[in-house]
Formats: sequence, C-alpha cells, structure tokens
Amino acid sequence: MKFQPPRGTRDTMPEDMIRLQYVLDTARKFFELYGFEPLDTPAFEDWKLLAAKLGGGEEIKKEIYYFKDKSSRELGLRFDLTVPLSRVVASTQLPKPFRRYAIGKVWRYDNPGASRWREFWQADADIVGSSSSEADAEVISVACAILKALGFDDFIVRINNRKITESFVRSLGIKNCVDVFRSIDKLGKIGEAGVKKELKSKKIPSEQMEKILDFVKIADINKIENLDGAGELKDIISSLGGYAENIKVDMSLVRGLEYYTGTVFEISVPSGRLSLSVAGGGRYDNLVQALGGSPAPATGISLGVERIVEVLKESGTLQLPRTPSKVYIASIGDVKKDVAETAKKMREAGVACEFDVMSRDLRKQLEYANAKSIPYVIVIGEKEIKSRKVRLRNMKSGVEKEIELDGLEGLMQLSNYKE
Amino acid sequence: MKFQPPRGTRDTMPEDMIRLQYVLDTARKFFELYGFEPLDTPAFEDWKLLAAKLGGGEEIKKEIYYFKDKSSRELGLRFDLTVPLSRVVASTQLPKPFRRYAIGKVWRYDNPGASRWREFWQADADIVGSSSSEADAEVISVACAILKALGFDDFIVRINNRKITESFVRSLGIKNCVDVFRSIDKLGKIGEAGVKKELKSKKIPSEQMEKILDFVKIADINKIENLDGAGELKDIISSLGGYAENIKVDMSLVRGLEYYTGTVFEISVPSGRLSLSVAGGGRYDNLVQALGGSPAPATGISLGVERIVEVLKESGTLQLPRTPSKVYIASIGDVKKDVAETAKKMREAGVACEFDVMSRDLRKQLEYANAKSIPYVIVIGEKEIKSRKVRLRNMKSGVEKEIELDGLEGLMQLSNYKE
Repeated sequence: MKFQPPRGTRDTMPEDMIRLQYVLDTARKFFELYGFEPLDTPAFEDWKLLAAKLGGGEEIKKEIYYFKDKSSRELGLRFDLTVPLSRVVASTQLPKPFRRYAIGKVWRYDNPGASRWREFWQADADIVGSSSSEADAEVISVACAILKALGFDDFIVRINNRKITESFVRSLGIKNCVDVFRSIDKLGKIGEAGVKKELKSKKIPSEQMEKILDFVKIADINKIENLDGAGELKDIISSLGGYAENIKVDMSLVRGLEYYTGTVFEISVPSGRLSLSVAGGGRYDNLVQALGGSPAPATGISLGVERIVEVLKESGTLQLPRTPSKVYIASIGDVKKDVAETAKKMREAGVACEFDVMSRDLRKQLEYANAKSIPYVIVIGEKEIKSRKVRLRNMKSGVEKEIELDGLEGLMQLSNYKE
Repeated sequence: MKFQPPRGTRDTMPEDMIRLQYVLDTARKFFELYGFEPLDTPAFEDWKLLAAKLGGGEEIKKEIYYFKDKSSRELGLRFDLTVPLSRVVASTQLPKPFRRYAIGKVWRYDNPGASRWREFWQADADIVGSSSSEADAEVISVACAILKALGFDDFIVRINNRKITESFVRSLGIKNCVDVFRSIDKLGKIGEAGVKKELKSKKIPSEQMEKILDFVKIADINKIENLDGAGELKDIISSLGGYAENIKVDMSLVRGLEYYTGTVFEISVPSGRLSLSVAGGGRYDNLVQALGGSPAPATGISLGVERIVEVLKESGTLQLPRTPSKVYIASIGDVKKDVAETAKKMREAGVACEFDVMSRDLRKQLEYANAKSIPYVIVIGEKEIKSRKVRLRNMKSGVEKEIELDGLEGLMQLSNYKE
C-alpha cells in the first residue's frame, strides 16, 4: 500500500520549492513596494459565490472541487483569488482604493496534462475602488517589475480594451459579440483559418469576417482613436512609459469572458521558440456589485507562478542554493557538545548549518553533505577542539583550508566568502 | 445576497495578515538556519492515507473535510503536515536524515468555537531517518529559537517519553494502558479529582490509581532513571542545555494517541493568567512504515501559528507597521508624471510607497493616508516641481519639514529616519 498525491496534484520537493519560494518572495516584495496589502481568505467558499462569476449557474460545479460539509453546506475550493477578494470588499467597509495582494493556491477541475495541474499557485495584485487608468497601470507595472527582477527582460505586455473590439464588432451590425470574442480569443491557438472556420459556422458573413480579422491585427493605438475605450487604453500605455518597449496593443486580446468589463492584458515571456503567458488580468467593474456590495470598480493582475518557475528552471538563469544549509559540521569521535556549540554560534550569526544526528562515520557524513549539495564542510574532532583549528572544505572545488574555529561564524557570514 | 466565509473559517484582513506573515517568516528563517528544507504537498490527499493514522478506520471521515472528485476518488483535506510528509518519505528515495519544514494550512471538522477554527496554519519541522535524541533536541531547539525571536522568554517546554509512563503503568499490572493515558492526558483540564473519577470508571483499583497520580507528578528525571525511555529523555534534556530553565519534565504528558511512539513534548507560553500551548510534537517511529515505506524513525514539532499570533496581538509586544507603504505621495493639480517618477525612484530604492489613483483633492488624499496609517506623506504640486522642494509630514507626530525632492528616496530608505 503506497500512496501518491491525488490525480492532477503533485508534491514540490525541496529544490523546486526553493525556486518556487524565491518567485513568491519576489512577488511579495514588489507587491509591498507598490503599497499592496496582504489579504488571506479560506481555501473553500460557498459554492454559490463561486458560481456567481458565471451568473449563478450549476455548470460551475463541473469546473471546481465541489463538496458538502457535514451540515450539508455546499462548498467549493476557490478557483481564483479575485472572487474571494470581491466577496470581502462586498461585505466589509474598507478605505478605498483597496490595494490588496494575495498569494495562495487555487484549484480547478481541469483535465490534467503537461503543465496543467488541478492545484496551482497564484500571486495577485488588485486595486478596488478606482476606475482610473492609473490603477490599471499600477497593477501592470508591479507585474513588470517582478518579471524584471526575476531576470526576464524580454517579456511582452499585450493590452486591449474589450470595449474597442466590441464597439467595432457592433458597428458591423453583429449582435452576438460574445460568440465572436470566443473565436477571436483562439487566434493564437487555431490560427486565422481556424477562426474563420468557427466564425463561418457562427453565421458571420465573410465580408464582416474579413473586416474583423483585419481589425484585430491593428497594433497602433492611433488608428482606432475614435472608438469607445481607446482613450482609456492610451492613458494606460502613457502611464506605463517606463515599459514602452514591452507594450503591444493587441485588438485580438479579449480574455476569459466571465467578469472583465474593459481593459484586459496578458504578459508572456519567450521560452525556446514559444511564447508562454505568465500573467494576465483586467478590469472587472461589476463583480463587487454582483456579489451584493456597493458598486466598486476594480482591476487586477494574476501571476501564473508555476509557469514562471518552469521557464526559470528551463532557462537555468536563476542560480539558487539547493538546500538552506551553508555549512555541514562533520564530527569525529565524541565531540557532540562542541559540535552543538559551534552550530549554535553559526545559527546565531545567521549562518544556516546542520550536523550529524545519525552517529555516522566521517565518510558517510561527507557523502550526505555532498548528496545535499551543502557548499561547505568543517570537520571537528578532539584534535581540532584542542588546537582550535578546523579544516574548511569547499565541496564544489574540493579546496581545503585550515582556519580558526573561534570566529568561524563571522567568516561564513560573508555572503561572498571565497577561499 | 451577501456572502460570508464558510462556517469555521475566516478572512485574515491586512493588519492581522502582516502579523501572521511576520510569525511565518520568523519560523521559516529559523527552520532554514537549522538546515531544514521546504516541502510542499497538496491540500487534499487520498482519504485512506488520512485514515491510516487511525489504523484505517472510517471514523476519520467525521473529523475531516471528506469529498469525492468527479471520478469518484475519495479525498480529504489534510488535517496535519506530518501524514503528507510521511507519505512522501514512504514513496520517495531521499538522503537521510531528511530535515524538512512545511508551512501551510490544514483543515479539521471540529466544532468551531473561541479560537477554534476549521481552517488554520501550521509550521512544522521534522527530521526523518534518525532515531537519536539529538534529532529530538534539534526540532525542539528550533521551536525554542523561533519563540525567543518572537519575544517569548518565558515559554515552558514540557517533555516526556511515553515509554516511561507506560512501563510504570504496566509495572502496576495494568494492561489497558491507552485507557489510562486518555485520562491522564486530561489532568490539566479536569484536574486530579476528574482523572480519579475517570480511572475509577475504568476499573483501576484505588491503590494503583494513587500510585499513578503520584508518579505523573514526578518532575525530576533522576527519580525515574531505571525505567525504559528515561535514558533517551535525559539525553534530549542534556542536548537542550541552552534552554535548561525552560524545560520541565512532565510524566503526565502523553499527547494524542495516534502516532507518537516515545518522546513527546509541548511548548506553552503564559497568556494573562493562563498558559497556552503553542507548539507540540514528538517521535513517531512507525508512521512511514505504516504508509508502505521502509522503516524510518522520525520526530517533529508543529507550531500553532494562530495561537502565537493571538498571544502576540494581546500582549502588544510586537510593533509592526499596519500597511506596507512607508510614504504616501499626495498631489495637487496635474502632476501625474512627476508623481509617477517619484514613486518609481522610491520603489527602486526599496521604499514602499503609493499615490492617488482616484483624482482626489488633497484633503481626501491625506484622510486616506491617515486611515491607512501610512507613516509619511509628501505633497507634490506645480510649485514643488519648480522649487524641487517638498513638504514631508510625519503623520503620527504631525511634524512637517521641507526637504529636497531629489534624493528623497535615499532619505526615506533609512529605516531609522527621524525628522
């Protein structure tokens, strides 16, 4: 009887977890630099709240982990961090604007596949209470700053205002705008021919079809100035001045249809020959009210943490330690007390270390330190205790050096210690 | 239609979340200083795994959030971090000892009450693969170091080895040891009279009863030297030398009966007139094998994060900022570009700041900064842009000072900036 993680989920082993934590820590650092406040909400919610995003339908049950508690309350694991935020805003008096960030897991009952998991992390920043384009620019900026800090210089922010595409489609006399959006949204996946085929089956006349496909290729905001929403889009782009070369206007970007009301954006990074979407978001001005609150405009961005971690792992740009310990204190003979004392001093000096708790011989201790990729080893025996000198071994280079035992912690404290 | 968090759960609003994060960050820092590696596992597990802790019984379903996924897999939200760790060790080849930490939420279907939540945080450190008392001492030490760093100096570590109490009870000719343990475990709650009543109903003769009650009062390890397990206990206490005044031998401590096999410990802190348990753990040498793995001795400690946060909040010893922003950049007139530039410089210098995104007048902006408890405000208008001088206001003291706009970020960087 051996157990595995449930289907669609996985364990994150230490080496990967160190990378994941680095990304989460970076996100948090920048969220806070931009004045966003942390908010935590439960892992599960009233299923009706989760359904509200889709207009209250039962169909949400197919996409989430739905269950009843022992009092027959109908619950579901949250599928994003936006709906819980909107619930909190709808039911609480908070000074506005509310800049909030949230970092946590969400769950979706998708078909698991390569890089598709039923449990995954999100890191979100949202501003509730402001309808201004400066708020959109702030949430986009913070995501850009995070990606830059993680070493991505060539990310692309695609941005649109759904109102623009909508008013153009409507101007062609087409009423089922949402149907058209659903097909346009697939442009990157199924290509122009695929979209045409879909639009045809949706009874869009070919003349209009061509016009739509031409329109969504427009990448110059100045060519659509007269359309509803273009002013907002222009304002955001101008507020994002610092990232001018990363911004790309994209009239084909419409994103998930559930709650976005205007501005939408998506950030992608190159990964080999592909371009991977690592963040996305937009403006959702009606959600708080739909959940029973006073009307509150809102905008936000969500980072796809696992995607970012994956690209960083593949590119190998991020060099992180494989284990927290910087020093392994190996021992020969019965020097437990001295080892414990040395460890205590190191830890108090902020140097992560560990020592043998298996009463192993020196060779096995060194094998362990090596298997763990602990960068440095010192060896303490009775001789070393007497002489107050120990050997310090750099496990990567193999270089050994004799140094004073007293004050060792100060030496190892140096982040740039080189032998 | 307003939604609340599901029964037994709650939202953690920014001010409380900042405190909670501080505790989690402190725990993580010390876990890593002690060489523990991070491991993350899914929120839910195969329910049979969760049940294994109790010997595989259906009764676990009453205590957990149990549900089926859409393929009728029987799952449950994890109720601790120890069982998932043991699953990982049972099914993976890992260098031993495995020092792992985990920080995450767990869920129990308890009756909610004052300070009892169905969703709560745990922060755990465990060492798998070592049966030595040094491993027990390491997990106790790291918890002590965390509590000390959080400002608790007067915590008490109660410690026992269940084998000692067990061998004494057996030496009296009593066979239903577990029944006796269940009663002894309640000594703190129901008192000596209560325990006596229970033991009587369990048919323990009064002579033996008196002997048991005398025995569990022994607080001197030297008085029980000849009993099984006493040597181990002595070794741990001697390894914990640095915390000698915090350690208390307690023969009445037996803790939850599920998986502990020997050493058990509990750490409590004074809170008003009460003493609150904030951490606990012990040795569980059989769990990995029970889950299908090769035998692997293990020991660990779990911090009750919410309890710690609560005590810190009540005592008021921990002074943390109420919001991440250190500076609010208020503006008069159309100086958006300059405000954005100032914010950019500050953020790049590591100074958290925010600015108006609501086009509010100065009074409203200051009201907002005040409501958020942002410590400093600077005011930028056209005059300030020309003169390159701004007013910097300490929101607490009310003191205002004129300073140079250029280089402001360097000044605000100082963690000890005083006007």
